[in-house]
Amino acid sequence: MSWLINNLGYTEDKTAHNGSKFLIGNGYMGYRGTMDEHTKEQLVSCVLAGVYDKVGDSWREPINAPNGLFTTLNCDGEVLTVQSSQLEKHEQVLDIKHAIHTRETIFEVSNGNLVHLKSDRFFSLDDIHLVGLQLTFSAVQDCTIVIETGIDGDVWDINGPHLSQLATGATNGIIHMSALTQEMGYQVAVSEAIEIDFAAKQQIITAPQSILRQITVEATAGEEYTFNKYVSVFTSLDSVEDAGHAAQLSCHNALKSGYDTLLLNHKQQWVKYWEKADISIVGDDDAQLALRYSMYHLLVIAPHSEKVSIPARGLSGQVYKGAVFWDTEMFMLPFFVYTNPEIARRLVKYRCHTLGGARLKAIEYGFRGAYYAWESQDTGEDACTLFNITDVFTNRPMRTYFRDKQVHISGDVAYGLWKYYTLTGDESILLDGGAEVILECARFFYSYAYFNKDKNRYEILDVTGPDEYHERVNNNIFTNQMVKYTLEVALQTLDLLERKYGEEYSKLINQLNYQADIAHIHEMNELLYMPQPDSESLVIEQFDGYHKLEDVNLKELKTRVIHPNEYYGGGNGIATSTKIIKQADTIAMLNMFKNNYSHEVKKANWSYYEPRTEHGSSLSHCLYSLVAADIGNAEWGYKYFMKSATIDLTGESKQYVGTLYIGGTHPAANGGAWMSAVLGFAGVNANEHQILINPKLPDKWESIAFNLSWKGQKMSITITKLAIVIRADRTNTATLPFEINGEAIECQTGQELSLNFHYDRSII
Amino acid sequence: MSWLINNLGYTEDKTAHNGSKFLIGNGYMGYRGTMDEHTKEQLVSCVLAGVYDKVGDSWREPINAPNGLFTTLNCDGEVLTVQSSQLEKHEQVLDIKHAIHTRETIFEVSNGNLVHLKSDRFFSLDDIHLVGLQLTFSAVQDCTIVIETGIDGDVWDINGPHLSQLATGATNGIIHMSALTQEMGYQVAVSEAIEIDFAAKQQIITAPQSILRQITVEATAGEEYTFNKYVSVFTSLDSVEDAGHAAQLSCHNALKSGYDTLLLNHKQQWVKYWEKADISIVGDDDAQLALRYSMYHLLVIAPHSEKVSIPARGLSGQVYKGAVFWDTEMFMLPFFVYTNPEIARRLVKYRCHTLGGARLKAIEYGFRGAYYAWESQDTGEDACTLFNITDVFTNRPMRTYFRDKQVHISGDVAYGLWKYYTLTGDESILLDGGAEVILECARFFYSYAYFNKDKNRYEILDVTGPDEYHERVNNNIFTNQMVKYTLEVALQTLDLLERKYGEEYSKLINQLNYQADIAHIHEMNELLYMPQPDSESLVIEQFDGYHKLEDVNLKELKTRVIHPNEYYGGGNGIATSTKIIKQADTIAMLNMFKNNYSHEVKKANWSYYEPRTEHGSSLSHCLYSLVAADIGNAEWGYKYFMKSATIDLTGESKQYVGTLYIGGTHPAANGGAWMSAVLGFAGVNANEHQILINPKLPDKWESIAFNLSWKGQKMSITITKLAIVIRADRTNTATLPFEINGEAIECQTGQELSLNFHYDRSII
Repeated sequence: MSWLINNLGYTEDKTAHNGSKFLIGNGYMGYRGTMDEHTKEQLVSCVLAGVYDKVGDSWREPINAPNGLFTTLNCDGEVLTVQSSQLEKHEQVLDIKHAIHTRETIFEVSNGNLVHLKSDRFFSLDDIHLVGLQLTFSAVQDCTIVIETGIDGDVWDINGPHLSQLATGATNGIIHMSALTQEMGYQVAVSEAIEIDFAAKQQIITAPQSILRQITVEATAGEEYTFNKYVSVFTSLDSVEDAGHAAQLSCHNALKSGYDTLLLNHKQQWVKYWEKADISIVGDDDAQLALRYSMYHLLVIAPHSEKVSIPARGLSGQVYKGAVFWDTEMFMLPFFVYTNPEIARRLVKYRCHTLGGARLKAIEYGFRGAYYAWESQDTGEDACTLFNITDVFTNRPMRTYFRDKQVHISGDVAYGLWKYYTLTGDESILLDGGAEVILECARFFYSYAYFNKDKNRYEILDVTGPDEYHERVNNNIFTNQMVKYTLEVALQTLDLLERKYGEEYSKLINQLNYQADIAHIHEMNELLYMPQPDSESLVIEQFDGYHKLEDVNLKELKTRVIHPNEYYGGGNGIATSTKIIKQADTIAMLNMFKNNYSHEVKKANWSYYEPRTEHGSSLSHCLYSLVAADIGNAEWGYKYFMKSATIDLTGESKQYVGTLYIGGTHPAANGGAWMSAVLGFAGVNANEHQILINPKLPDKWESIAFNLSWKGQKMSITITKLAIVIRADRTNTATLPFEINGEAIECQTGQELSLNFHYDRSII
Repeated sequence: MSWLINNLGYTEDKTAHNGSKFLIGNGYMGYRGTMDEHTKEQLVSCVLAGVYDKVGDSWREPINAPNGLFTTLNCDGEVLTVQSSQLEKHEQVLDIKHAIHTRETIFEVSNGNLVHLKSDRFFSLDDIHLVGLQLTFSAVQDCTIVIETGIDGDVWDINGPHLSQLATGATNGIIHMSALTQEMGYQVAVSEAIEIDFAAKQQIITAPQSILRQITVEATAGEEYTFNKYVSVFTSLDSVEDAGHAAQLSCHNALKSGYDTLLLNHKQQWVKYWEKADISIVGDDDAQLALRYSMYHLLVIAPHSEKVSIPARGLSGQVYKGAVFWDTEMFMLPFFVYTNPEIARRLVKYRCHTLGGARLKAIEYGFRGAYYAWESQDTGEDACTLFNITDVFTNRPMRTYFRDKQVHISGDVAYGLWKYYTLTGDESILLDGGAEVILECARFFYSYAYFNKDKNRYEILDVTGPDEYHERVNNNIFTNQMVKYTLEVALQTLDLLERKYGEEYSKLINQLNYQADIAHIHEMNELLYMPQPDSESLVIEQFDGYHKLEDVNLKELKTRVIHPNEYYGGGNGIATSTKIIKQADTIAMLNMFKNNYSHEVKKANWSYYEPRTEHGSSLSHCLYSLVAADIGNAEWGYKYFMKSATIDLTGESKQYVGTLYIGGTHPAANGGAWMSAVLGFAGVNANEHQILINPKLPDKWESIAFNLSWKGQKMSITITKLAIVIRADRTNTATLPFEINGEAIECQTGQELSLNFHYDRSII
């Protein structure tokens, strides 16, 4: 099976899409799939995870490091670039097994010569500051080739310029550039070393925003010339004394190790990633590739620091302010929890580190506890603005309520934390800040809730649920369920701590002055209103009054569009007063709380909401896939799975909301594809006690096989049309409890069990 | 002093404005100030108070009766109309003392002849179905004059056609037309009789939508010809067996009485109106006329049935759906309570009759009790639509929250009722439905309110206050005060009934199943949150979060306007996210609850909100005038008083909101002018125990004199710069308790007291 993604030829209008599609990186940095000779015009971006800057009143966003990979070729005085030259051949290849990007181009020079250029690059997963580039060129006729390669400090910025006080230099053959961010004055240092084994004239050219080597080669026809580049990036947020020095030292060490060794080390780390994460599908090559591609996109941006989480557009640029949304907990975290708990722990810990920002936001809005940022950056303060969209009709900023009203974010954080804890068994997360986060989220919801004395119930008013086209609604079923879950988890946390960690419990309760809130949370958990399925239709009303909205169908609604980029929501959006929803909302809830609702209720709601969903968010498809699989209809789910898994392959997603560019990769959809495959079709449904498996494979899938991690134990699972094969890793320290075919089954360490399985299609 | 309003010359572009400005009527009907020869093209309208019709999906609105006054003159084959003929002279005069409209025109005929036409018309206040018209014409040269006069059934409709199945006939010299409304099939009957004392050839011409008399006169040069017309209008909503028969009978009787008698009877009724209502101002002729004109506009539309109240645009057409808003209770009712309690009682009773509609609206929104219509018509169901404005940028209906969220309306109804009761002493209103209304309004607020357990208080969430530019806000000070007032009034009502009308009390409590709610209302009254003045600035925040809005000034805001008719509020309006407010809101509250707040608080809030108020509603000015007077600054208040008093004279008011025409008369501003004069400058501030007088006359007012009615007693009050003269009517049955100069003063029946009064200007 192929692990390669490729693209033939070059067209300017696909440059932005391919930049995202061919992204490489290592979690510390992301690098868009642009060509060596590209600059900010083609959206070259070497974005640094978790390093943010703000200029004046503009939006705060992550910064791009100076581009140490910049390289152009010039043949007999003619600059060769994909965008300006005639191309005999051009191919771009991404090896997702090892996160290596290759480009191969044959330029037609106007004097009739042909110049062949191939470059490989990788962002080392073994040494996350290091980038390797190997570039090979040759010409059909003798010629003079001038290479300019070095560090381009004239970076792409959406709300910049972020890099100030650029300084360059060359020390012992290593060139380097350093700059300071504007807001916090973080130092960003990039060094570059080069390894050339052919005769060439070299000089260094310094300009205000670049430092480049000029390498002149008298090339012999047909001869191949290869050189290696090592680029190292450090910032003052890294645990080093001097970022500039560290970057130079890193280049020195790279030169010592050499390209092949560095590449091998990098590949070995990726082999480990895939050992844990890979899924093999037999019978459906398209799904196989798309699913691996989805997982690749999660792995390539997985953070190495617990102070960094994954932004909504990953590391594909500065889009969406590099902000962390609920996407991480709800769509990406499950993949990591089940395959790489170490990374999952970092994502969860990020919320512990940003609790301070969440407390400030609660205070800002007059509440207690932790109200997490809708758009979270390094400090946890909310980067989301009150005017997040521009009205295309008036060009005025539009007041939106993403920041104010999506209170479910605090529930999502608690949910993610509790899922991590229950599925990994890692109690230390609770003692290490997790319990405090959960209690503060519950406290926030208590202070946010209102009590309806006339109906003797708590209600959650004036919220925006996942369906952002309907802002400021009351008793959104998704939100109310998340609130209730948070309360329950808080009570369980309190119970656990009190039972097992008495001292820490007392300390925490005192420190948080939480005594009175314990009673509050008990009462609210008892009396929180939860909208119920209609007794006849079984449909759960998404929020109070949803059923009174205009029941227009989606096609009809779209005939009302006046401007292609107009926003469907907000005060005057075309969807606002209709039943058309942006994305899975009730269905999202039914996926998360699948054990609380009957098959019939899930089916009724899927059927009701599916035709009313615009899927204006890339988060939507996987949830319809998951619930379709849950109700036994894998074929309904399959098309949504494929939509989710191929989103970054096809580039078929919204590029603009209002006048705002929102392109880039879609890690939530990538995580959603994984969830659809493993939690949906393979039917894995684990809790802290057992692993239930109830597969519903799409027709064309002969089998699916994958590894999972659960409470520190590892297992392999293979599902065919007739059997489920479970294999407990021989390093396990405990027996694995499964439930399959409605029966409890234990799998001992090292044991492999093969169980016949028969689809119950009667329920569909 | 003049009681005449006049207009010289005729221009087409002023036809609509003059139609409102020269309105006559008698509360049963309103008739726009158009010419005898005008038709629906010139917006002729004989609107019937309280008779509504709805066609298809269009807005429900009051109907126009066929126009029985239609009359054209033709001289030697040439039709004479103000809009098509050369005019030697044209004048339109409104006698506001007697509600008589006069037009006088000299037409230049193309053959050189001059035709003089004068007509007087009145809508009898003595017999409200009857209209009188006296028409006189003469010519400078001998000629043939053909008059066509009769009933024009081709009426102006905004959302019509309302009149179906037109039938015409002539019986015993009386011509008549009858039609049925579309929704309810109400019969509308118009009859017309004519009285001619000169030789003429007569015939009757019937067309599908009209029945006209053709009267041909061989006119002698210089000779005056006069005829009288009597028009009578009945509908099946009147207490008659057959509307058509009643209309004909009425014409017969009119013929018997004759024009002069009918006119005299009419005038006598107007004399009685003015005896009660007139205000005399010395030193300011402009204010004198404008104030009388304002009172005229209230009297001319004062209803005769307790099933009818006063619409927001009076009887000046079908604008605003002929709907009754809070305007009536808050801006018009005080004038009637203090001058003509009989009419006031009808306005209050209207809310008793529409309690059923208010209950239905509460149920519709999931509440208990009475949620009154924002736009009330005959049944009390809400005529307000969810999409009340059209977005000028997209031409799409705009979702607004007037209907859903202006919950203060139920408080306004209770407020009006209680003001009527306390200032008239008429306890029968409580037994006659008023108590039930008050209790149901309080119950509505209890069911609407939420309890904030974290702050131990009730809050009023998600409302729109008078400042409609900020929809869906929490704890609007105006609304919260109205809610609290309603609760207090409900408790007082319960107390009063229990003490004095035990049987009725028990019956009502049982019938309403109100026992549990008594305790609820007690508790809520104790624990309702009331925003307080800021400890430093003394400003009361209009609603939660108002102070976080952009503090742009009004001039700057207006530079952002793109389209002249764009709506400033709604989801994306330019005022929505700023501190600019549509109209008095906190200031409205400070006027109503003036006794609850200190001078300093009122002054601080006036100074704060005044520059931030757009006065996008004609209801706004008088409130700024009232509070300015209250804080002792009559000059600040004077300009707002004049703005309110002259609104229908100048026509300087908003004509469009979005694409919606909102022209017509402004009875709320008319009532506001009266309040500014009597409750503001004259400083009358009565409660159920006494009448406080604390005047602050504008500099140029030498004196103001007026009559008042209070708890069944009558008085005259004259205020000069130095003295207050109070005179108790000799028919009074009780002593009048005043408070003047901080002292309690009693005025015996028939007594006149003159008290020195010194302005305390130090407080300004």
